[in-house]
Amino acid sequence: MSDEFTVQDEQFMQRALDLAAKGIYTTTPNPAVGCVLVKNGEIVGEGFHFQAGQPHAERVALAQAGEKAKGATAYVTLEPCSHYGRTPPCALGLIEAGVVKVVAAMEDPNPQVAGRGLSMLAEAGIESAVNLLKDSAEKLNKGFLKRMRKGTPFVQLKLAMSLDGKTAMANGESKWITGAASRADVQKMRAKSSALLSTSATVLADDPSLNVRWEDFSVDLKKEYVKETVRQPVRVILDSQHRIQPSHKLFETASPVWLVSSEVRDLAGFPEFCEQIILPQDNLLSKLMVELGKRQINSLWVEAGKNLAGSLIEQKLVDELILYIAPKLLGEQARGLCNLPHLTQLADAPLWKLNEFQQIGDDIKLTYTPKGF
Amino acid sequence: MSDEFTVQDEQFMQRALDLAAKGIYTTTPNPAVGCVLVKNGEIVGEGFHFQAGQPHAERVALAQAGEKAKGATAYVTLEPCSHYGRTPPCALGLIEAGVVKVVAAMEDPNPQVAGRGLSMLAEAGIESAVNLLKDSAEKLNKGFLKRMRKGTPFVQLKLAMSLDGKTAMANGESKWITGAASRADVQKMRAKSSALLSTSATVLADDPSLNVRWEDFSVDLKKEYVKETVRQPVRVILDSQHRIQPSHKLFETASPVWLVSSEVRDLAGFPEFCEQIILPQDNLLSKLMVELGKRQINSLWVEAGKNLAGSLIEQKLVDELILYIAPKLLGEQARGLCNLPHLTQLADAPLWKLNEFQQIGDDIKLTYTPKGF
Repeated sequence: MSDEFTVQDEQFMQRALDLAAKGIYTTTPNPAVGCVLVKNGEIVGEGFHFQAGQPHAERVALAQAGEKAKGATAYVTLEPCSHYGRTPPCALGLIEAGVVKVVAAMEDPNPQVAGRGLSMLAEAGIESAVNLLKDSAEKLNKGFLKRMRKGTPFVQLKLAMSLDGKTAMANGESKWITGAASRADVQKMRAKSSALLSTSATVLADDPSLNVRWEDFSVDLKKEYVKETVRQPVRVILDSQHRIQPSHKLFETASPVWLVSSEVRDLAGFPEFCEQIILPQDNLLSKLMVELGKRQINSLWVEAGKNLAGSLIEQKLVDELILYIAPKLLGEQARGLCNLPHLTQLADAPLWKLNEFQQIGDDIKLTYTPKGF
Repeated sequence: MSDEFTVQDEQFMQRALDLAAKGIYTTTPNPAVGCVLVKNGEIVGEGFHFQAGQPHAERVALAQAGEKAKGATAYVTLEPCSHYGRTPPCALGLIEAGVVKVVAAMEDPNPQVAGRGLSMLAEAGIESAVNLLKDSAEKLNKGFLKRMRKGTPFVQLKLAMSLDGKTAMANGESKWITGAASRADVQKMRAKSSALLSTSATVLADDPSLNVRWEDFSVDLKKEYVKETVRQPVRVILDSQHRIQPSHKLFETASPVWLVSSEVRDLAGFPEFCEQIILPQDNLLSKLMVELGKRQINSLWVEAGKNLAGSLIEQKLVDELILYIAPKLLGEQARGLCNLPHLTQLADAPLWKLNEFQQIGDDIKLTYTPKGF
C-alpha cells in the first residue's frame, strides 16, 4: 500500500518520527511515539510521548490542536492503541476529536493492540493507512518491538577493544583502551537502554557505577537530553556466588539493582532498590531474558568480560554486537574479547552482518547483527 | 604557489594523474607518471610511463603531439627528470619540443632529480609551477617516494582476521577467514607491490605460491590490468634455518625468490631465480629494509604470522597496517594477530591513525598509518 503515499505524507510522517525520537531516552517500558495532525496541508497539532504515565503522543497533539483536530489527518509513528491502560485508548481519542484519516508508520505488535487500533478506527468510519517509513519506525523502538514480538529484550553486546581484539593488558589494565569520545557514546547507549547487564566478576574487578552520568555526555547529547530528566537504567548483575556487597559503587546510584542467582540470599544491609532474581542454573541466561521481558525490560545493554560475552553469543542471545575499536595493538598476551569454548571449526564460527560504521574520535564503532546463526 | 592555479589547470593535472595510475602495477622500480600537453585549451598529446626501459610519460605525450607540442603547456605528475638514465632527460625533451610552460604536481625527491629538472627548464627560459594536486601525486607513488626519501621500501603489513583479532583456529585452520572479495583485493595489493615478504614458517605451514594470480582478480581489475602484462613481485622469505626447499610452490612461479638468512647455504637444486640475501642476525629486519631499498624495491607487502607482524611493529618498520576483518568471532583459543612481547603498559601501545575504511564483500578493510610511535 506504500505506493498510495505522497511526498507530503512522507514529510509529515518524518516530522512525527523526529518528534518520537525525543522520547527515546525516557519512554521505557513504553515505545517512543510521535504524532502530527494536519489540516488543509498545515500542521495543527503535534506531540510525542515523554514517559510512562504521561499522555501518549496522540493525546498531546490533540490537546494542542483543540477544535482544529476536527477533519484533520493524523500521522502516527505507531498504530494508535486500542486498550484501556493508564490512559484511555488513543484510537478512541482520535475518533472523538473528529479526525478523518489516520496514517500509521507501522502496526503495533503489542498483543493488546496488533491491528485492533486500526480496526477500531475503521468501525468508526475513519480511513486509515499503514506502513509509511516503516523501517525508520522499526529502528526507533527496536527494544519495545522485540519484547512485544518475542517476550524478551533486545540485547546489545558492547565490546571495547584494540585492533587485535584485546580488552585489557595481561595484568588487567584497561583504563582506557578506547578514547573519551567512545566513552561518551557508551553513556548515550546506556541512556537509551532499559537495563544494563554485567557480572559480579566485572563489579569485583572494576567496581563500576554502571549508571548514566550526564556530566560525561557529549555536548550535543547534553542539549538533547537535559540533566533534570535523566533516567537511570536498571542494573542486572549475574552474581551466582553472592559476591556483590552493599559497599559496591553500584549502590551509590538510587536505581534498581537486580542480583541474579540460583540461590536466595539475605539482602539485609542492601538498599531497598536492590532485589534478587532467582532462576535455575540450567539455561540461566535464556530464562533471565524471559524474566526481564516479563519485567518490561525493552532493551538490555551488556557490558562484561569475555565469558559472559562468549556465553551470550554461543546461546544466540545477542541481537546487536557493538564494537568500539581503538587504533592500538596490545599483542598476544593481552586479554581477549570472547570465550567460545565449543567452537572448533572455522565453518561453525558465528557470522555477523555489518549494519553501521562510525568514526568516533580516534576510534571506530561497528554495529553488527547476527547472520546465519 | 597553489593559489596561482586555475580550475582548468586542475582538470588537466587530474587527467595526467588518471593516466599515471595506469602504470601503478608495472612501473616499479620507476614511479608511475602521467603527462598531458595542452595548447589553446586543448589536449594535443598525453601519455604515461608503462614500465622501466620504456619511454617516460613526457616522451609518450611529446611523440603524440608532434609539431603541436611547440608552444604547449605540459602537466606532469612528477617533476621531469634531469639525468641521463636509460633515456635522455625528459626536461631536455620538453625544451627541445618547444614547450613553453611545465606544471608539475610535485618535485621528484630522487636525489638525481630533486629540483634539477625544474631548474634545467628555468635555465632554458621555460616557465614552471609545482605542487598542484600534490597529495594525489604523493599517494600514487608511496613506494617510490619513500625509497627516494629514506632509502627503504614502503612497508604494508597485511593482516586478515576475525572481529576478535584471530587469524586461524587453534588447530591452524585458516582457509578462509575472509571472503573471496577480500582475497581478490589482496591479489590487487600484491600486484601493486614491488616485493612480498613472508617467512619460512608460513611457507612450511601453508605452502603458498605468493604470486599474483590474474584468474583471482576482480572483474574490474581484469579489465584494468590485462593478463599479458602481469608483473610478478619479488618474493622475499625470512629463512634463517634454511628450511625452504626447491619443492615448495613458491618456485612454480618464475619470478625472483630472495631467501634471507645470516648464513650462506648451497642453492644447488633451486631455480636460477632464487638467490640468498645474507645479513647479520642483529637488527636483521632493519638491515633487510636497507638492502631491499638498494635493490630498488619500492613497496613491500607483508603477509605473515603474528611473530613477524609483531617484530615489524615493535621495530617501527610498518608504514601502513592493512586489516581485512571478517564478520566472524573465533573465540579465545584461536590464533592471535601479533606478538608484542615487550609491551606491558597500555600507555606504551603503538597508536595508529585510520586513513581508509572500505566494505569489501561481507568483510571490511581498514588502513592505518603509525601515529605517535
